[in-house]
Amino acid sequence: MYAVVPAGGSGTRLWPLSRAGRPKFLHPLTPDGRTLIRATLDRLAALAGTGETYVVTGGAHAAGIARELPDLPAANLLVEPAPRDSAPAIGLAAALIAARDPAAVMGSFASDHLVADDQAFHQAVRTAARLAEQGLLVTVGITPTGPETGYGYIRRGRPLDLDGGFAVSEFTEKPLREVAERYLATGEYSWNASMFVWRVDVFLAELRRQQPDLAAGLARIAADWDTPRREETLGVVWPSLPKVTVDVGVLEDAARHGLVGVVPADFGWTDVGDWDALGGILSTSDGAAVLGDAAAVLAVDSGGTVSVPAAGRLVALLGARDLVVVDTPDALLVCARDRAQEVRRIVERLRAAGRTDLL
Amino acid sequence: MYAVVPAGGSGTRLWPLSRAGRPKFLHPLTPDGRTLIRATLDRLAALAGTGETYVVTGGAHAAGIARELPDLPAANLLVEPAPRDSAPAIGLAAALIAARDPAAVMGSFASDHLVADDQAFHQAVRTAARLAEQGLLVTVGITPTGPETGYGYIRRGRPLDLDGGFAVSEFTEKPLREVAERYLATGEYSWNASMFVWRVDVFLAELRRQQPDLAAGLARIAADWDTPRREETLGVVWPSLPKVTVDVGVLEDAARHGLVGVVPADFGWTDVGDWDALGGILSTSDGAAVLGDAAAVLAVDSGGTVSVPAAGRLVALLGARDLVVVDTPDALLVCARDRAQEVRRIVERLRAAGRTDLL
Repeated sequence: MYAVVPAGGSGTRLWPLSRAGRPKFLHPLTPDGRTLIRATLDRLAALAGTGETYVVTGGAHAAGIARELPDLPAANLLVEPAPRDSAPAIGLAAALIAARDPAAVMGSFASDHLVADDQAFHQAVRTAARLAEQGLLVTVGITPTGPETGYGYIRRGRPLDLDGGFAVSEFTEKPLREVAERYLATGEYSWNASMFVWRVDVFLAELRRQQPDLAAGLARIAADWDTPRREETLGVVWPSLPKVTVDVGVLEDAARHGLVGVVPADFGWTDVGDWDALGGILSTSDGAAVLGDAAAVLAVDSGGTVSVPAAGRLVALLGARDLVVVDTPDALLVCARDRAQEVRRIVERLRAAGRTDLL
Repeated sequence: MYAVVPAGGSGTRLWPLSRAGRPKFLHPLTPDGRTLIRATLDRLAALAGTGETYVVTGGAHAAGIARELPDLPAANLLVEPAPRDSAPAIGLAAALIAARDPAAVMGSFASDHLVADDQAFHQAVRTAARLAEQGLLVTVGITPTGPETGYGYIRRGRPLDLDGGFAVSEFTEKPLREVAERYLATGEYSWNASMFVWRVDVFLAELRRQQPDLAAGLARIAADWDTPRREETLGVVWPSLPKVTVDVGVLEDAARHGLVGVVPADFGWTDVGDWDALGGILSTSDGAAVLGDAAAVLAVDSGGTVSVPAAGRLVALLGARDLVVVDTPDALLVCARDRAQEVRRIVERLRAAGRTDLL
């Protein structure tokens, strides 16, 4: 199969480490010190060869990704001229794969998520791929561990013939807490982690049905891709493409037509959405978690605290409980761990104050 | 009168700002941004002229003090060849003042304390000076604001004829908490802030009685001070002087002989002993106190926190309550404010780890 990794967004909730110029996926946020995008490609290597793996990103991050992933063929790094959300990005990859291999199965996976159990992940994706071969657009849904309000949910319908697959009854937006609790109580919902598996011909056909302008634009770009006109066509057509996500622009209505399946799975997934989530996957010493050089942190009675010594300085903690301490060369964050989701408020205030140097 | 300011010690509880090479008194720890030693000399200016003011320090800090106090006559900066505790340091100044002005009254005041009400301080010292003229060794005692265990206490005896003066009944060591509470309940105790006022001839006579070796050594040094032999005599005699404090080596027994008086006073004194104490004297914005450039701190819901942005970086606080955050170029401290007294534990661990670069 083919693997596609859209790599966009900057992740303001991981400020001050994550910045506009160096987004979340380029930081070594895994417990073993790899960047999230490196870990993503390593995880996908069992499913798709490097020649069959594509990364889609913007011009600002192309060089960073090219250096971080030296084994990725240069031709497989697709650079969008402007951000156009996930349907154009994933659609471009699908169109180029279809030109190589018209009935190929592709899977699309975010560049900045983490998985604890690679084998369970591979098994879920392979199940999804078998469903996809039968003509469904398939999502891999994450079994919820709590009533999270930060994710969309996928409601499953009737079981499909294939073990572990279900028809999708509906996609939902990010819910209120009470709604999320009701979802959990039914046992019928998975989190939508934007993991998609499908045959490229099936996806492109559905794109033509629901998003004809987008499908036509992508077809023009794909037709000129391996010609001297690639840059010219891309530069002209891309900015005219609609900004739309795969979820809203394709999957919601496809589900209503019975075309979408879900494979519920549980493989220790996290989107590393904020510093609290990161703390949850790091190992601890005396209850204190360190991302990076543990020798740079001197912690006394500081259980529950996540520290990131990323400025080469000593970080001394004394009775500093349940905090996030992120130390970078030009900015320091000290945050109550249970307020980690609000770090973007800091970013917003810096933006309002014109401190673009710190964003 | 004459003023003497012993300037020694490094103040490990104010780490990482205060270091061995740049002690507490050379840092701008006053609410208006002056260094503690500058504020001390400014406070004493109403009592003694600069020509009548002496600072006693070690060689390591002589240059720092000379630059910080450009108005201090060079001859009035007395440099000890080695640390010998307070009796030799203050005794040297007393001996040199006695050579100029045999019955002069001198006051000795720490270089690194703060006073909120200068007028009340001046009034107390002037009362002490009038008692001193009558031949007593006089302390200015601080009216306790709580059962502190970090200070010695002075118990007052019978009132003296002079308004506001009392005989000292005894000096006590730093007490246990229960003992300190009993002291407070009696209303008879003041904190010993090492503020001493006396006639130099009276003090030197008592030194000859109780510490004859010290008195003889200081007399030899003073005799050679204004001769070409000063350095030679100082270098030979000083290291032989006993290490002893004024409190233990002179005042305790003098009190038993009825020679010591105390002027209890309340002028908003603090020894700026730790970051919590410093926080208590800084003004706050939304409950957050900043020492230094307030524009470098972005605080959201961070009441009770004291931050010191001393590395030129942005310090962002989010839900960070009742903490101390001290940001210096090579070390960061994040500490629960109610554990500020334990910061020396960090310093001890760094010393044990051989990190002398951070001490």
